Amino acid sequence: MTIIDRYPSRVGAVPEIIERHDPVVWNAEIDGGPLSAEQLAHYADAGYVIIEDVLTSDEAERLNAYAQELIDAAEGAIAVNEPDSSQRRSLFAVHESDPKFSPLTRTGLLAAAARQILGSGVYVHQSRINCKRAFVGKAFPWHSDFETWHVEDGMPAMRALSCSLALTENTAINGPLMVIPGSHRSYASCAGRTPERHFEESLRRQSYGVPEDAHLSAMAQESEIVAVKMRPGSVCMFDCNLMHGSPNNMTPYDRTNLFVVFNSVANRLVEPFGGTEPRPTYLASR
Amino acid sequence: MTIIDRYPSRVGAVPEIIERHDPVVWNAEIDGGPLSAEQLAHYADAGYVIIEDVLTSDEAERLNAYAQELIDAAEGAIAVNEPDSSQRRSLFAVHESDPKFSPLTRTGLLAAAARQILGSGVYVHQSRINCKRAFVGKAFPWHSDFETWHVEDGMPAMRALSCSLALTENTAINGPLMVIPGSHRSYASCAGRTPERHFEESLRRQSYGVPEDAHLSAMAQESEIVAVKMRPGSVCMFDCNLMHGSPNNMTPYDRTNLFVVFNSVANRLVEPFGGTEPRPTYLASR
Repeated sequence: MTIIDRYPSRVGAVPEIIERHDPVVWNAEIDGGPLSAEQLAHYADAGYVIIEDVLTSDEAERLNAYAQELIDAAEGAIAVNEPDSSQRRSLFAVHESDPKFSPLTRTGLLAAAARQILGSGVYVHQSRINCKRAFVGKAFPWHSDFETWHVEDGMPAMRALSCSLALTENTAINGPLMVIPGSHRSYASCAGRTPERHFEESLRRQSYGVPEDAHLSAMAQESEIVAVKMRPGSVCMFDCNLMHGSPNNMTPYDRTNLFVVFNSVANRLVEPFGGTEPRPTYLASR
Repeated sequence: MTIIDRYPSRVGAVPEIIERHDPVVWNAEIDGGPLSAEQLAHYADAGYVIIEDVLTSDEAERLNAYAQELIDAAEGAIAVNEPDSSQRRSLFAVHESDPKFSPLTRTGLLAAAARQILGSGVYVHQSRINCKRAFVGKAFPWHSDFETWHVEDGMPAMRALSCSLALTENTAINGPLMVIPGSHRSYASCAGRTPERHFEESLRRQSYGVPEDAHLSAMAQESEIVAVKMRPGSVCMFDCNLMHGSPNNMTPYDRTNLFVVFNSVANRLVEPFGGTEPRPTYLASR
């Protein structure tokens, strides 16, 4: 069976904006899921929604203390450092390693909300902690997650989403998630071709799958960029194709977030559309 | 005559927090200056004050267009590029080169406000445009201006201030000025010794005169960091010893500001306290 690439990117062509072919909210019926009609409408329109106080601030504080222990103890490829630094940037596959994170994954509120949006059963495609430590936490440039998951992991359709749980306060100035509302409705095809084992560099500093400045400007002209502010324990759920990034954290306040990515069981990974070897399963569960 | 160094820094000693020896507002009497008692009190307490709409938005837009022409045309040492880049970062000595900026300097509202705060006549110590261009504008790390002006220029007392005029909108996310309110009341003496001609590197990327993380954390614990949001045409006046910095601008929105520094005529420069040659006059007027 030949699978048609509906979202070509990094295939050497001129970068361009492509129309989205998939729904955003796959289940128009609200069948007793945790999200209200209003929250679903906001998600469909803006590409993200904030759910306040999924954990209490005490629970978030305890989970953060535990996350810091894991980060400090971690070894091997799942632990990624900041560019040109021995400071920790990300820790992957945390849902597998530890039952303390399991309420946030298969069985909990977020999975239920993900099923509601994606209109099917879901599984965890990826999980990670992004450390963004005070003074040293470096930026994540603008990108669509889907672009990478499609090209490097073989995710066929835009039927996945991320949950970013604040373990510390996310303010406007400590390197928060920034999103371009509405940008999930179009797809910024990128320049270049992906080298093999690109992820070894890209998790520290991305140089392929980077959208054009002109495309970003056009998206940000249609809708003002939003810096997502959250109390510890609150969650931002956002579409896999929402254009987002986050700046350096030069403040003395840590910005540590736990990410869980849900993919639809109807959207399982195939061969990467960029023609490279699939990435390791700690980055893309198969 | 031997001048005692009341604010030693970069003299090879252990970095420490030193008490401020100088007043913040030098003229307690309000003798018909443009600042209200409330504005002066805010300045004394927090170390900065925002004056809204010094220029109309139209005037600011025209001045910005003109500033961009100057930036593009500029050559020589007064034009400084971003680190590892051919993109313009700063342009110095703009008040000298151009009568269009003169209302902002000797004769205008800002000079009158500066005289009110500093309790004396004033002159322009330095002027510059900080470009902070969309996508490429890089951070200015945390620092006290006075620390550099004292060590590298020989400014004896904390009797100077900066005016930052917004030529474009300054939002929370396009690389705004961040200040630690109240930090102007103590002095963070820094490590190291200044190399000769340090400014050639430091204007692009500062590596001396950088305060300790622990000192910054202590200051930011006493008082929450503020990102200064301003409409085009508004001005932030801030004390020469206020701890401040500004992050990268990764948004598609330029953040271009015009800076004018006023020093008291009673605080003229002497030999640099760091023992190096004085910096060029486009950085420190003598």
